[in-house]
Parts: sequence; C-alpha cells; structure tokens
Amino acid sequence: MTQPLADGFTRLAPQTGTHVRLAAGEVLTLLDPTGVQVSDLYCVAADDVDERLSSGRSIDFENGIRFTTGSTLWSNRSRPMLTVVEDSCGTHDFLLTPCSQQTFDILYPDLGGAEHPSCFANLVDALEPHGVRPDDIGTTLNVFMNVWADDTGDLHIDPPPSVAGDRFSVRAEMDLHVGITACSAEKSNGGTCKPIDYLVSPAWRGALPDQTS
Amino acid sequence: MTQPLADGFTRLAPQTGTHVRLAAGEVLTLLDPTGVQVSDLYCVAADDVDERLSSGRSIDFENGIRFTTGSTLWSNRSRPMLTVVEDSCGTHDFLLTPCSQQTFDILYPDLGGAEHPSCFANLVDALEPHGVRPDDIGTTLNVFMNVWADDTGDLHIDPPPSVAGDRFSVRAEMDLHVGITACSAEKSNGGTCKPIDYLVSPAWRGALPDQTS
Repeated sequence: MTQPLADGFTRLAPQTGTHVRLAAGEVLTLLDPTGVQVSDLYCVAADDVDERLSSGRSIDFENGIRFTTGSTLWSNRSRPMLTVVEDSCGTHDFLLTPCSQQTFDILYPDLGGAEHPSCFANLVDALEPHGVRPDDIGTTLNVFMNVWADDTGDLHIDPPPSVAGDRFSVRAEMDLHVGITACSAEKSNGGTCKPIDYLVSPAWRGALPDQTS
Repeated sequence: MTQPLADGFTRLAPQTGTHVRLAAGEVLTLLDPTGVQVSDLYCVAADDVDERLSSGRSIDFENGIRFTTGSTLWSNRSRPMLTVVEDSCGTHDFLLTPCSQQTFDILYPDLGGAEHPSCFANLVDALEPHGVRPDDIGTTLNVFMNVWADDTGDLHIDPPPSVAGDRFSVRAEMDLHVGITACSAEKSNGGTCKPIDYLVSPAWRGALPDQTS
C-alpha cells in the first residue's frame, strides 16, 4: 500500500490510506505527484481519541470555509490540532464526510451497489487499530478537493485544481493520530484515482526539500 | 425553562434548551414566536446513541448546503434520521457547531471570558441524561440561522430572516433523542435572545412537494 521514495516521501497507492503518528511540532506534508488528486485527512488526539477534528468548530473559529496557510484546524474540545503551514494549491474542502460505500450506493446508482474502495473504509483501517471507532470518523479535511456551492446552495464537485508537485503541509499542535488517504472516488478526481505522497518532518523550517520522483 | 401554551406548543425560555423524544413518524415543529431567533437542533438514535446527526453526510447525500422542505438529514451511519416536512422560512445553517463557551471566548473577546449561556451547554444538559457524551455533540442544524459565505469563503452571520410565526417541521425517520435550543448568542439573533416554541405531533398530515435538485 505504501512505497518509500528516494526523496524521503512515502507513496500511498491509489485508493488506499494509512496512519501517521505526529508529535506536537512535527509537520505532515501531503504532495500530489500527478495533479488532480484528492487526499482526505482526519485526526484525533493521541492521548484521548475522543478529542477529534471538528469541521464545525474550525469553520466557526476560523470564520470561513476556505482553509489555507495560517488556518487552524480545531478539535471538538475547541483546541488547535493542526496549523496549515504550506499550501501551494489553495483549494480544499471541509464540508463533506469522506467517500464511503454509501456514497457510491446513494450518489452513483449506476455502480449498482458494487463494493467500491472508499476513503471512509481506508480511514477505518488506518485509525481503528489506534482506538478510533468508525462512528467517530466525521467530516474530513479533503485536501485539493474542489467543492463549491452555487447561488442556490447546490454543491458542485469539480476536478481538483492541483498540479503535479502541489503541496499541503500541517504542523501538529498536539500529539496526534492522523489518517490520510489517496481518495477512492473517481468522479472527485478527474476520472482516475492516483497516488498521494506524504512526508513527516521534525519541524516546520519554512522550506521542505523539493520532490523529484 | 419551558412553559405550556394554549395552542399546544411549549415555549422554551430565551437561552435555554430541552430534550424531545420522537418516535418514528412523529413530527417536531419549531416555531419562532417573535421572529429573528435561531433554534439549534441535534439528534441521536434512541436505540444507539452512537448513531448521530451528520452534517457532512447530509451535505454529501443531499448535494447541497441548503436544507428545506423535502431534505433528508442523515446519520453518521448513512441512514435517514429526519425529513424536513415544513419550512416557511427557508434559511438555516448546517455548517457550524452550536455556540459554546469557547465561541464567546474566542470570537467575542470583548466579553472578557465571562461565563455565557450557550447552545452547546444547553444541548449537553438536554442530551447527556440520555447517554450522549458532550464530545459527541457535533454540528447542529441551526434553524433560521443566517450564515453565508462570500466569494473569498469568509462567513457572515446576519440576523435570522424569520418572522413571527415562521415554522420548521421535521418528521422522525427512526426513534430519536432530540436536543433543541433557543439560541444563546446575541450576535446571531439580531442583538437579543428570544424564546422558541415547539410542538410534537403524532404524524405529518400534509403532502411533501416533489423534490427536484
């Protein structure tokens, strides 16, 4: 599912996910190696998994639905969990839960209910061994996902605007269990599901090594 | 905290909340008796409180951020919890967590950190006796709340457009514990916190319009 790369990054295979343990101060970088690919992110406090990422509190305290460099991602206990320290893309979603089997069943009836890989299942696999109940995996930060509402409030999901090499980095503000994915929904990713690369760095120094893959 | 009214409704005093038990098929009506007043709503399945209201799945499956007559409100297990059967106002929010002590501390520093009534505390009081953990009270449906994002993604909270007598009714699609409030945040309610009236009816006798998206 994961493959080490020469530059220190690790590659997540298409339609997979993994667990990352971050100590406070460490930085997680998500890199889109091909462009046009979403990565879902969810996290819980390492010392108490009932403290978890809250889109509703983040949107409230940040007073907006766009999250980029400088934004704080807050927990359900109103504490900062992550700070965005790098964002070369600028388009991400924090409204939607991760794609799940039911997403495909309900929204894509043309798939006929067939079993389909999903970010939700991949996040369950990544986080359940660390004590996170599936019921508690809520709205994810969907990095590079291109969701927008028109004047009637209807949502539109366009292909991610990310290009090869786009990066999104978050600094942990507490010790965290993080689940990340290479999103499994073809229609959210320009038609094909591609890999995502990630790297954990000891601290944010204002620059990270360039990736060549 | 609650006062029976001659018309069968019960009045929630300003800045309070209560618990309502709904059997599948029963209808809860929220009525704004004065206009310009928000009521937050949260619910869990009565037979397993770990199944709870999910804004992220509702926004995903309903493909929009505006909820009105015909909309379904979904659980974190992708099952319908409530159907909106009546809505004379048309403006509600499903992005924000309920106002909490931290909302006032973080967003309204002019209050100096003073203790303030909040929808979150009122929902905890309403739902914790029924087994709901405070950590599990997530994003609420904020009935009559007027939240909109501008082109930059910044949020604006304007006074609720509800007028005296505006109604919002939901039919339970499963047995539910519901928490409702008369919202405690002056700035979300046109400057003053006012009561909310509610009524539980055995069934919805009207017809739902055809839903077109």
